[in-house]
Amino acid sequence: MKGFLPSASGLVALVAPLAALAAPLTIKEQGSFFVGGESKTVAAPALGPIPAQSGEITVNQMYVQYQIPMRGAEHLPVVMVHGCCLSSKTWETTPDGRMGWSEYFVRKQRPVYLADQVSRARSGFDPTAFSDVRSGKSTPDKMPAILSATHQIAWTVFRFGPKFGEAFPDEQFPIAAIDELYKQMIPDLNSTLPRDNNPTWKQMAALAVKLDGAILMGHSESGFFPEQAALIDPKGIRGIVSIEMPCETTLASTQIETLAQIPTLVVFGDHLGDVTGGPVSWRQSFETCNTFVEQLKKADGDAQMMHLPALGIKGNSHMLMQDRNSDEVADLVIAWIDAHVERKAGH
Amino acid sequence: MKGFLPSASGLVALVAPLAALAAPLTIKEQGSFFVGGESKTVAAPALGPIPAQSGEITVNQMYVQYQIPMRGAEHLPVVMVHGCCLSSKTWETTPDGRMGWSEYFVRKQRPVYLADQVSRARSGFDPTAFSDVRSGKSTPDKMPAILSATHQIAWTVFRFGPKFGEAFPDEQFPIAAIDELYKQMIPDLNSTLPRDNNPTWKQMAALAVKLDGAILMGHSESGFFPEQAALIDPKGIRGIVSIEMPCETTLASTQIETLAQIPTLVVFGDHLGDVTGGPVSWRQSFETCNTFVEQLKKADGDAQMMHLPALGIKGNSHMLMQDRNSDEVADLVIAWIDAHVERKAGH
Repeated sequence: MKGFLPSASGLVALVAPLAALAAPLTIKEQGSFFVGGESKTVAAPALGPIPAQSGEITVNQMYVQYQIPMRGAEHLPVVMVHGCCLSSKTWETTPDGRMGWSEYFVRKQRPVYLADQVSRARSGFDPTAFSDVRSGKSTPDKMPAILSATHQIAWTVFRFGPKFGEAFPDEQFPIAAIDELYKQMIPDLNSTLPRDNNPTWKQMAALAVKLDGAILMGHSESGFFPEQAALIDPKGIRGIVSIEMPCETTLASTQIETLAQIPTLVVFGDHLGDVTGGPVSWRQSFETCNTFVEQLKKADGDAQMMHLPALGIKGNSHMLMQDRNSDEVADLVIAWIDAHVERKAGH
Repeated sequence: MKGFLPSASGLVALVAPLAALAAPLTIKEQGSFFVGGESKTVAAPALGPIPAQSGEITVNQMYVQYQIPMRGAEHLPVVMVHGCCLSSKTWETTPDGRMGWSEYFVRKQRPVYLADQVSRARSGFDPTAFSDVRSGKSTPDKMPAILSATHQIAWTVFRFGPKFGEAFPDEQFPIAAIDELYKQMIPDLNSTLPRDNNPTWKQMAALAVKLDGAILMGHSESGFFPEQAALIDPKGIRGIVSIEMPCETTLASTQIETLAQIPTLVVFGDHLGDVTGGPVSWRQSFETCNTFVEQLKKADGDAQMMHLPALGIKGNSHMLMQDRNSDEVADLVIAWIDAHVERKAGH
């Protein structure tokens, strides 16, 4: 794949028909709803065709889309939360048109809840800090930075190869369909939220309570969000799956004790140290998570680091839920849930 | 309902269980994909934790989520596109927890495709004009206006009652659940797009071609988008359903001839002239659409104005797909599709 040059052509992607290989799917219930959301009074939010007028808008709500399979009552719901510059599209049809984890887990009879992070996609965002700059009430330097990863950054941060346009020989990401991943990458407005108290955390905790028990799954930017949610309210959180992120290693012992009550799986793919010069060190993130897992174990926690290459599974990228072997990785996660969360709880 | 005061409390919405009343649903295929999208070279897009670096981002892509029912091949797909300050959530579970039009149409064996408009929700948006102001490359007055409707504006523009907090006696919108609608209302970034050539139009036309024939449905801001799509490329567009919007009345005769080839239904609810002082005149929009329908008819088009009160159906708001009688209105639209699009085409 050396020298492969991606091009985001304007052609209509003919990926949908490829997804038609599976058998029909019967679902008991599906739908969408919001968790949380607060009113905020704004001075002149409604620019454009509708005249400016003071009033209230709703902010910090989290959009959730769900499907419950026929035997869903036999299993705990799985809440999937996407990473930086992405939406819940992460878990749906893969860039090369295969079934994503959301449907795969449903077919394994797990109720699945996809949450768009607060300030992203269908959850919307608080536009006030931008509108205030436009109206002169604030200055450009006060405007939140919109995080927007380029194709070049995605290639190296997501570990598709050692440098942009060059894939690892054993790369599992479907490189030929990379333009479809680039379309998933959307502006990230998390800088509009308090960094040390992201509202997505409390909404995830509230969702787990609402579901009367759930497994929280995070990825990358949101990889440690399940833990942050548990530190706010662990009541509904029965298990945690944290995928490829830096881990906190300076938590207080009382916090570790709280988290040690919840079975926790951390997953990392391959080539952690094989991309040089990028803005993210996955090797370092991996080490922080090894430390975190050891901290949980020392507090009698059921915690596990699943490093895929250590299991003989090679070539996985940061986007392992979209990699060519995504079903295989999903099966490992489901087997962990069965053994460490559900059987233990007598589910 | 006079004096009803909405409050967007932070309580977790317990709406999901209410949706469980329906029988299980078997679907042949589901998934998501993007239509279109072009590369754009940007100087320093990646602010925040990832260092600024020039490169490419993808813009103008349109996210589409779909479900095909078991007998979907017997019917034309229906593409649903939401309005201002909203996302595809518009067509899903209603604010009071009933089944939305997306699932209702699927249960009526119609393949349904929900598109987030370009620059909204999971389609992402081009952040360049904002980043340029922040970096000093541009000035605040050049920044696009973010359209963000307040609760107060929504109440009057969506015709829930004569003034904010006061509902019409026969109001069909589920007012008690209005906080759930407010959560659906997210910033609208269409001002980042060319006003006379919104990329959503070409993506809708391309989607209809990709599907080898589809019915395009638009609402409010996107109400006339099906017609705009047809003026770009009518090839795949078998029928148009335009719900509650101002219509263009100054189209060229060649444009009217193009549109007259496509069966067209325009739908309006009740109380069009009963809200005073609001920024939108629905009575005037209704009149422009009556004119437009007459223009199509004069060009031998199969066009119809469905004004619900004229059929004895009273109290419908602008959000008629979420109103308490949403199934009844859906049935009327489906009956029109059967009679004017499918039977005519020998489908």
